[in-house]
Amino acid sequence: MADQYAQTSEQKRPTEIPAIRWEEPPEGPVLVLLDQTRLPAEEVELVCTDAPALVEAIRSLAVRGAPLLGIAGAYGVALAAVRGFDVEEAATALAGARPTAVNLAVGVRRAQSAYQAVLARSGDARQAAEAALGAARALHREDAEASARMAEHGLALLDELLSGGGHRILTHCNTGSLVSGGEGTAFAVALAAHRAGRLRRLWVDETRPLLQGARLTAYEAARSGMAYTLLTDNASGSLFAAGEVDAVLIGADRIAADGSVANKVGSYPLAVLARYHHVPFIVVAPVTTVDLDTPDAASIEVEQRPGHEVTEVTAPQVQVTGAGGGIPVAPLGTQAYNPAFDVTPPELVTAIVTEEGVVSPVRADALAEMCARSRRVATS
Amino acid sequence: MADQYAQTSEQKRPTEIPAIRWEEPPEGPVLVLLDQTRLPAEEVELVCTDAPALVEAIRSLAVRGAPLLGIAGAYGVALAAVRGFDVEEAATALAGARPTAVNLAVGVRRAQSAYQAVLARSGDARQAAEAALGAARALHREDAEASARMAEHGLALLDELLSGGGHRILTHCNTGSLVSGGEGTAFAVALAAHRAGRLRRLWVDETRPLLQGARLTAYEAARSGMAYTLLTDNASGSLFAAGEVDAVLIGADRIAADGSVANKVGSYPLAVLARYHHVPFIVVAPVTTVDLDTPDAASIEVEQRPGHEVTEVTAPQVQVTGAGGGIPVAPLGTQAYNPAFDVTPPELVTAIVTEEGVVSPVRADALAEMCARSRRVATS
Repeated sequence: MADQYAQTSEQKRPTEIPAIRWEEPPEGPVLVLLDQTRLPAEEVELVCTDAPALVEAIRSLAVRGAPLLGIAGAYGVALAAVRGFDVEEAATALAGARPTAVNLAVGVRRAQSAYQAVLARSGDARQAAEAALGAARALHREDAEASARMAEHGLALLDELLSGGGHRILTHCNTGSLVSGGEGTAFAVALAAHRAGRLRRLWVDETRPLLQGARLTAYEAARSGMAYTLLTDNASGSLFAAGEVDAVLIGADRIAADGSVANKVGSYPLAVLARYHHVPFIVVAPVTTVDLDTPDAASIEVEQRPGHEVTEVTAPQVQVTGAGGGIPVAPLGTQAYNPAFDVTPPELVTAIVTEEGVVSPVRADALAEMCARSRRVATS
Repeated sequence: MADQYAQTSEQKRPTEIPAIRWEEPPEGPVLVLLDQTRLPAEEVELVCTDAPALVEAIRSLAVRGAPLLGIAGAYGVALAAVRGFDVEEAATALAGARPTAVNLAVGVRRAQSAYQAVLARSGDARQAAEAALGAARALHREDAEASARMAEHGLALLDELLSGGGHRILTHCNTGSLVSGGEGTAFAVALAAHRAGRLRRLWVDETRPLLQGARLTAYEAARSGMAYTLLTDNASGSLFAAGEVDAVLIGADRIAADGSVANKVGSYPLAVLARYHHVPFIVVAPVTTVDLDTPDAASIEVEQRPGHEVTEVTAPQVQVTGAGGGIPVAPLGTQAYNPAFDVTPPELVTAIVTEEGVVSPVRADALAEMCARSRRVATS
């Protein structure tokens, strides 16, 4: 069965490479991903011709980030439908590829529902496949629009919370155009501040174990001409203590009904530090990240990833030697605890910014109301 | 001028390789170091024949850890004296090789004072050199003894603070026999708990950027048969939140008169997390780490290390490609903030354990009294 293949994009200017795109070459439709595991060393595209290939790309983190996972999931269903594979099977596999980001399952369900509705009405699989693709394209477009609105609301919030000159923002993991149909979530807010001349410094946590901050956020910040400085996740404490952080901006993979925020591991320690230092801790995510079916922190399934991500360091351009495909840094046989996410309780979150506006303080009723408002807009 | 050379130690059992030893081969006295930058991949010894070579080994972190730096500094002065180099010049260079750990300067001064005293009295440089070597050997021996007493006091404190069964200890950086004339500081306490059958789990922070936890503490824990698990520094928040940490045990590079503790970067965030979760945060260090001439946190010079330690990942057994000698993980030109240490204020420290006993709560008067007691013992 056809699956993934790689193509280098040396002719294209790097900034023109989108994180995801649907293409229809003569051989048949494909989903093209910028392979994020190889950045910033190489800009290589990964071409998926079926859902299993996409599932593999999701698991290996070639494509990642909550909003982008939703878009990828929707396109994956469309790909299965257009190519005549079993759509239900593809949807199940895609939705279960990673457990924590709710957006993935939401995106899959949206394309799947569009497919099922048209199939039930017309009995025409080709029309149903077109509907699935239309749903994926709509999600992609809406995510770009949501990004712009989050940036606007987020910047207004920063300007309201922080007096004085330029903002010094600390961010964690990667939340820019690599995770979005647009310019991202938390990163989009920092970018808006930069464009408005109000970003003094973007502090970029490297984000162990997979270094999405060092590899991806630094890459995006450099391309955007932002004043940024990289640091180990360890060093953020020193920045807080020195009064060098005005606000923390992070994304989210799932927000429970009570406002508990699951995000990249390392977010919770930042929230505790921010509280201790009276620094605003702001979560930026599309409304689809709020999952009213998940009541609280205890109900969020946190993905445990393989120990070799910790016991070995992965550097794509280097010959690999370890069992996990990386360079061993710990003694052979070392066990590792490697949760991909942690959960920050609502009382440590200053505000949640979505495309619908700002929820602050973070309370269950305010979140539910915002979700209801969003649904009214979507169905009107 | 002769300086460093490497020798592999394949015949010896690894546990028999001490972190530092004085040898007197026919070619003349040398100081032999276990090169800690190559662990755990390779066990290579570095042979220093003069003080500049040792300064380089200290700067490159081939030899590291506050107590061991003191011992190395003393032997370095002895080496210069025995080999007939300028002792004052060597002492100045050694004491300034790294700024934060007070033990280094203390060790240098001890050997230097012994040298000067005998030289002034007898005018005999050979006798003076013997006195310097004697001082280094005494410091080495005393550190081993101090280690054993810290372990005893620390374990008693754990048993007092923690009720119930086995202790789950979180530690940061490396504080075992690789940093000491004995079994170390914080690690020695965990090891004592292990031997007493009361260590349920040693949680080992990997300790970015240089991964002393992954490379060195995991290496020592594995050799000692301890139940240990490695984690990214990021993941400790999840452990605290899950109630999986009973106490934090760390070492110290300098303790100011007010009880502010300078230690490996990442210690302060752990102290904040520990406080937030009502978990004891315990500092284990020899009395020589307390510097009554440093009044408070603001007076502690924190070493800023090169950015390439963050923008590149170093793995000794791999061909290097970056300007800093490692594998680049961030875009070219990325600036990094890389303090080697951070400072934890006394109000976040549950107890300071030294060979003289336990100071808790951590207050200036109690620390001063302990130092005075220690000096009385030393001079009696």
